[in-house]
Amino acid sequence: MSTDVVLTIAGSDSSGGAGIQADLKTFAAHGCYGASVITALTAQNTLGVQGVHACPPDFVRQQLDSVLDDLQVRAIKTGMLCDAATAKTVVDNLTRRTSSGSLPPIICDPVCVSTSGHTLLKEDAVETLITGLFPISALITPNKSEAELLASRMGSGCETKIDDLESMLEVAKILIKSGCKAVLLKGGHLSTTLHDVQSISAKFPDARVIKQGILGENMEILLAGCAAPIQAETKVVFDLLYQSTGQTTLLVRPRIESSSTHGTGCTLSSAVACELAKGAKSLEDAVASAAMYTHLGILAATAIGQGYGPLNHLHSIQPSLIYPRSLTNPYPFTTLLIQSASETWRQYVEHDFVKQLGRGTLDRANFIHFIKQDYLYLKYYARAYGLLAAKSTSFNTIRSATDTIYNVLHEIGQHKTYCSTFGISEAELEDTPEASATTAYGAYLMDTGDSTKLVMALMACLLGYGEVGLWLKKQSSMKDTWVVLEGNPYKHWVEEYAGEMYQGAVRIGLETMESLAVSESPSEAKLEEWKKVWKRCTMLEKSFWDMAMDLKD
Amino acid sequence: MSTDVVLTIAGSDSSGGAGIQADLKTFAAHGCYGASVITALTAQNTLGVQGVHACPPDFVRQQLDSVLDDLQVRAIKTGMLCDAATAKTVVDNLTRRTSSGSLPPIICDPVCVSTSGHTLLKEDAVETLITGLFPISALITPNKSEAELLASRMGSGCETKIDDLESMLEVAKILIKSGCKAVLLKGGHLSTTLHDVQSISAKFPDARVIKQGILGENMEILLAGCAAPIQAETKVVFDLLYQSTGQTTLLVRPRIESSSTHGTGCTLSSAVACELAKGAKSLEDAVASAAMYTHLGILAATAIGQGYGPLNHLHSIQPSLIYPRSLTNPYPFTTLLIQSASETWRQYVEHDFVKQLGRGTLDRANFIHFIKQDYLYLKYYARAYGLLAAKSTSFNTIRSATDTIYNVLHEIGQHKTYCSTFGISEAELEDTPEASATTAYGAYLMDTGDSTKLVMALMACLLGYGEVGLWLKKQSSMKDTWVVLEGNPYKHWVEEYAGEMYQGAVRIGLETMESLAVSESPSEAKLEEWKKVWKRCTMLEKSFWDMAMDLKD
Repeated sequence: MSTDVVLTIAGSDSSGGAGIQADLKTFAAHGCYGASVITALTAQNTLGVQGVHACPPDFVRQQLDSVLDDLQVRAIKTGMLCDAATAKTVVDNLTRRTSSGSLPPIICDPVCVSTSGHTLLKEDAVETLITGLFPISALITPNKSEAELLASRMGSGCETKIDDLESMLEVAKILIKSGCKAVLLKGGHLSTTLHDVQSISAKFPDARVIKQGILGENMEILLAGCAAPIQAETKVVFDLLYQSTGQTTLLVRPRIESSSTHGTGCTLSSAVACELAKGAKSLEDAVASAAMYTHLGILAATAIGQGYGPLNHLHSIQPSLIYPRSLTNPYPFTTLLIQSASETWRQYVEHDFVKQLGRGTLDRANFIHFIKQDYLYLKYYARAYGLLAAKSTSFNTIRSATDTIYNVLHEIGQHKTYCSTFGISEAELEDTPEASATTAYGAYLMDTGDSTKLVMALMACLLGYGEVGLWLKKQSSMKDTWVVLEGNPYKHWVEEYAGEMYQGAVRIGLETMESLAVSESPSEAKLEEWKKVWKRCTMLEKSFWDMAMDLKD
Repeated sequence: MSTDVVLTIAGSDSSGGAGIQADLKTFAAHGCYGASVITALTAQNTLGVQGVHACPPDFVRQQLDSVLDDLQVRAIKTGMLCDAATAKTVVDNLTRRTSSGSLPPIICDPVCVSTSGHTLLKEDAVETLITGLFPISALITPNKSEAELLASRMGSGCETKIDDLESMLEVAKILIKSGCKAVLLKGGHLSTTLHDVQSISAKFPDARVIKQGILGENMEILLAGCAAPIQAETKVVFDLLYQSTGQTTLLVRPRIESSSTHGTGCTLSSAVACELAKGAKSLEDAVASAAMYTHLGILAATAIGQGYGPLNHLHSIQPSLIYPRSLTNPYPFTTLLIQSASETWRQYVEHDFVKQLGRGTLDRANFIHFIKQDYLYLKYYARAYGLLAAKSTSFNTIRSATDTIYNVLHEIGQHKTYCSTFGISEAELEDTPEASATTAYGAYLMDTGDSTKLVMALMACLLGYGEVGLWLKKQSSMKDTWVVLEGNPYKHWVEEYAGEMYQGAVRIGLETMESLAVSESPSEAKLEEWKKVWKRCTMLEKSFWDMAMDLKD
C-alpha cells in the first residue's frame, strides 16, 4: 500500500454505492489511503433517496480540522455539500489552507441533484461553489444538467442548453471563467455516435480524441470477433476535458446499457483524485485512467439491490496471496508451501531413515544403498540447475544456478571420499543401477516445466536436507538426547548438511524463492500449481528414503 | 467481485482508520460489497477524538430500513452505537427482522471506549447491548476492558478482572449467558508468553490452540533465519474464542511492536463478518482468518498521521491488470498486447510487402524468396507447437497444440501445391538455405521459455497473418479500393489466410490466450515480460518481410 492519502468531503450513502462510500471504495481500489469528512447523511438505496440529515456546519469544520491538521493529504475530492452554510464552511476552511500553500489539488464534483431527482445541494449554495470552491479547484466535473445550471448562473442570464458537442465546448468555456484550472464535462446524458465525434473533431483539429475500450487500427480480426463491434453509427459516450490553457480533449467510450450506474459521478471524480495523488503525468492522463476505471466498473457490475445498482468498484483488484515478510518470519512463502503439505513434509524430514541415522543404528546396507542412489540423483540435480541456467534471463540467475552446480560438484567430491570410507569405489558408484525412486525424482525435476516451478522443485531437496542436518545437530546438543554423534558412523554426513557451507546455500535458495513469489505474485490457480510441485517433490524425497530402507531397486 | 453484501452499523471516523471507514476498507479487501448505517460522526485523527455528533435515532432507523429493505445482506457487523436511544433503535429494528427470520449473522463489536480513552457508548446503553443485541448475535468481540465492564454488569455485581488466560475463560463463560452464540475475547492488552499459552492449554486439554504466523514443527532452518524467532519466553498475543457449545479455541500470534493499531477492533469484527458472508466452513475458521488478516495489516502498515496510525487494510490485495471481456471487445488482453507495441504491430501487418501483394504489384522474386523461407519457418512453427504439447499438463492443451500442428501440415500441403505454380519444386523448398531472419524467428520460438510465453509468441504470428488476410480481403470489397484480387497472382495466398479454416484457428488461439491471461492474472513484472515477448515476435515478423523485400540471406 502506498501512503497516498486522499480526502473526500461529501455525503454518506447508506447503501454504499455513491457518496463517501463510493469514494472510499475507489480509493482502496487505487491503493490509496482514504479519509472522509461527512457533510450529510442520506438514507438511500438503489431505488432512491429516502431522507437526508445535514451535519451541523461547525461539525463539518471540526472534521476538516481533525483530518487536515494531522494527515498529509495528497488530493481532495468534494461531492455533496448540502447547503449554503456547509458549502461556506468547506470553502472558508480550504481557502484559508490554500493561501498558506498547504493544500493538494482539489477535484470538485458539483453534485446538485441525485440521479433519482433528489436535491443534494440547495439553490443558495450554488453561488458559494462558483465563487469560492471553483477558483481553488484543479478540476470541476459537472454532468450535463449541473453544467447547464452552473453556466446559466455564470452566463449573461440566458439559458445555455447542452445538446451536442459544440454546445458542450461553449459551456465549458463559460465554466472555466470561474477560475478553476479545468472542466471535465460529462456527456453521458447525450446521445452521440462515433461518426458525430469524428465530424466534430474534424471541426476542432486541435482537440485531442482519446478512444477508450474501442478497437483501433490493425485489429480487423478482433473487430470481427465482437458480438457488438463499435462502428460509425454506434452510440458512444464521451466526456469533454477543457483546460484553462485551452487544451481540449475528447474521451470516447462504448456506451454500456446497464442499470448499474449508481455512483458513477462520485467514482469518476474520486478516481481522478487518486491518479493525481499517485503522481499522474498530466491531468489528461489522470482523467483518462479514471474514466476507464469507471467504465470498467459499470461493465463488471453484477446486480445489487432492486433499482439502479452500484458499479463494481473492485474490478481492478485481486487477492494477493503472498504474506509480507517479518522479523518473526522472513520466509512466509516457504512456510506456506511447507504448511500446504505439512504431513508429507514431516514424513520426509522425520523419516525413520533420518532417525536411525541420528541414533547411529542405521543398518550399513541401507546407508550404502542410499548413498549410491544419492550419487546418481545428484547428477540429475546438477543437470536440473543447468536447465535453470538455460532458462534464465539474467546473468544473476545464471550465476546463482552455476554456483549451485559447483556446490553439487563439491558435494560429489566429499561423497566419493566418504563412500571410500565405506569401501565403495568411484567405479562402483558409477556402475550402480538406478533405482526407480531415483529415476522418478530425477526425471521429474528435468520435466518440471517453467523456471519458477523448477526453483520450487529444487528447493524441496535443498531445504529438506538442510532441515534434517540442522535438526539432528540441534538434537544432539540437548540434554537426554536420542541423537548420538560421537562414534556415530554417519556423523560426517550430519555435519556436512548442518555445516555453514550447505546452510549458506540453503539461505540463498530461500531468498531466491521468496523474492520470486513476491515478484510473480501468483493468482490462486498459479499458487495451486506451485503447491502441487512442492508436494510432489516432498513425496519423492520421502519415497527416496523408503527405497533406502527397503533396499528397493 | 462477489455480490456478498456486508452491512456495518457504526460510527464514522473522519481520519479513515476506524469506524465505518475501516469496515468499508476491510469489506473491499475481502471482495465484499459494503453498505453502512452511520450512528454517529466523530471528528477524529490519529491523535484522538476531537468531537462526536450523534445521529438522530430516527435517522439511524431510516438508514437501516433503506439498506435492509433493498439489499440482500449476508452479514452484519455492529460497532459504536453511541447512546441508549440509538442502541435501542438498532436493537428494535434488528430484533423485528430477526423474528421474521430474514437476518444474516450479526457480529457485535461492543465498542465502549476509544483507544485514546474517549467514551463511545454511554453508560445507559450497555444494558440494551447485553439484553437486546447479544441474544441475537452470532459473535460478540469485546476487548479486555469491555469484557470486564460487561461481565461486571452481568455477574453477581462483583468485579471480574482479567489478568490471565484463566480469568479470560471465566469472563467468557459469564458473557455467553447473554444468549450470544460465541464470545471472542481479545487478549491484546495482556502480557503473555508462548510458555504461558502452553501451560494453560495443558490444563484445558479440550481447548484447541491455533498458532498463527508462528513457525511450527520441522522448520528449524526457517527459525534459524529469523531476526526475532518466537521462543517459549517470547511475548505473544492471543484471543480466546468461546462458543455456546463449550468449544474453546486459543488463537496465538506474535506480538508486533507497532503504533499502527488504530482501528484493529473494527477491522477484526468486520473481517469475521466478511468471512461468514463468503461462507466460511465454521466460525472458528472465520475468526482465525480474520485475526490473521488484522495481524498482517498491522505488520504491513506504514506511518500515517502523527499519533497511533491505522493498520494497512490493503495488504491482501493487488492490482488486477486484465480487463473484463465485453460485447464490444471480447479480447481485452490481446488488445492490450497489440497496443503495447502498436507501432511495431502496424509496421508488421501494414508492411510494404503486404501492400504490394494486395495490389498484385509485388515482384515475383520477392514473393518466391518469402514463400521459400516461410516453408522453413513453418517447420520451426510446427515444432514449437510440439514443444507446447510437451509442456502441457492437460489433454485439452495437448489436443489443441496437436490440432495446430495438423493445421500447419495442411498449410504446408497447400504451400507445396502453390509453390509448384511458381515453378518451385519440393526438393528446391527443402534445399533452400535458411535466411538469418528465419533462424532468428524460429530459434526464438524454440527458446521462449515457459508455455504461457510460448502461447503468446506463437499468437503474434497466427493473429498477424489472419489480420493481413482479413484486411486485404475486406479492402478488396470496398469502393475505389487499392486491393485487386481478380487477376492478382497472390490471390490464393490472401484467400488462404482470410478463409474460414485459418480464421477459425485464429479464434481458438485467441480464446486460449485470453483465458490463460485471466487464469494467470499476472503481476506487473510478469505482464512486462509478456509484453516483451509479444513485441519481440512482432518485430521478428516485420524483419521477416524486410528480408523478403531485400532478398536478404
